[in-house]
Amino acid sequence: MESQTPAGWLWNGRLRSLTLGNRMAFVMIREAKEGDCGNILRLIRELAEYEKLSDQVKISEEALRADGFGETPFYHCLVAEILSAPGEPQGQGIGSKIIKKVAEVALDKGCSQLRLAVLDWNKRAMDLYKALGAQDLTEAEGWHCFRFEGEAMRELAGK
Amino acid sequence: MESQTPAGWLWNGRLRSLTLGNRMAFVMIREAKEGDCGNILRLIRELAEYEKLSDQVKISEEALRADGFGETPFYHCLVAEILSAPGEPQGQGIGSKIIKKVAEVALDKGCSQLRLAVLDWNKRAMDLYKALGAQDLTEAEGWHCFRFEGEAMRELAGK
Repeated sequence: MESQTPAGWLWNGRLRSLTLGNRMAFVMIREAKEGDCGNILRLIRELAEYEKLSDQVKISEEALRADGFGETPFYHCLVAEILSAPGEPQGQGIGSKIIKKVAEVALDKGCSQLRLAVLDWNKRAMDLYKALGAQDLTEAEGWHCFRFEGEAMRELAGK
Repeated sequence: MESQTPAGWLWNGRLRSLTLGNRMAFVMIREAKEGDCGNILRLIRELAEYEKLSDQVKISEEALRADGFGETPFYHCLVAEILSAPGEPQGQGIGSKIIKKVAEVALDKGCSQLRLAVLDWNKRAMDLYKALGAQDLTEAEGWHCFRFEGEAMRELAGK
């Protein structure tokens, strides 16, 4: 997500500077605010497009607001603002920084695990997660992900 | 979980009667209470034993109480009380009833999907989920489950 104002630089002392070769990105990771939901939906759509699963994105900005910023939120979200990134953001360590921050927040909240789902052809993501210390449970133990949704879920619930 | 008192029979009108062949089980599905945590831990351990993953159970009854019954619960739990079940509870449709109830509660709370993880050798569970309308996303789309935990997670978070 691109920064809206340079004020981001001063946020809470959490400015991260990443250097890789002669490229440098300034990244700030912060908790999402309700006003970010439009951009979060854009990122969800861009990820789904990359995953060739665009038809599966049903959520609206309104639902993102209701689900994440009500009294009992369904999700918590961090936002990485790239303040300065010459060229493509890929390969500048931004993904690693985000995952590390998620792990930090999760431990602070008392979580003992961090789980991710990744498509088997997305070698780039799989390699990154393995390099950071994750275990592929589908490969190692044979876990399969199952999903009920739409008509199947309503039928299941008798609705 | 076996019923403690016959009072369970009258609970909230939600008594379910299941008949399969000449066997009959009376099952009551209700929200878990803090006092159920000892039995919930026992069930977690029994499931892990069946899955040959007993060494992965780290949670305590105390943590189950704190995580599920604090101000912002990490999980919600339903409990099925088998009030009368001649012979083994397997094959009496209790698993289906529980999944259906979870779907009902999930839809009521605004969820659009219900996800499960299952081991590839657990054909009995896989067949049940498929028969109820679930899709095996690992098979259909190639989703793999990844997990960070323990030392890898603390290292990731820099702790």
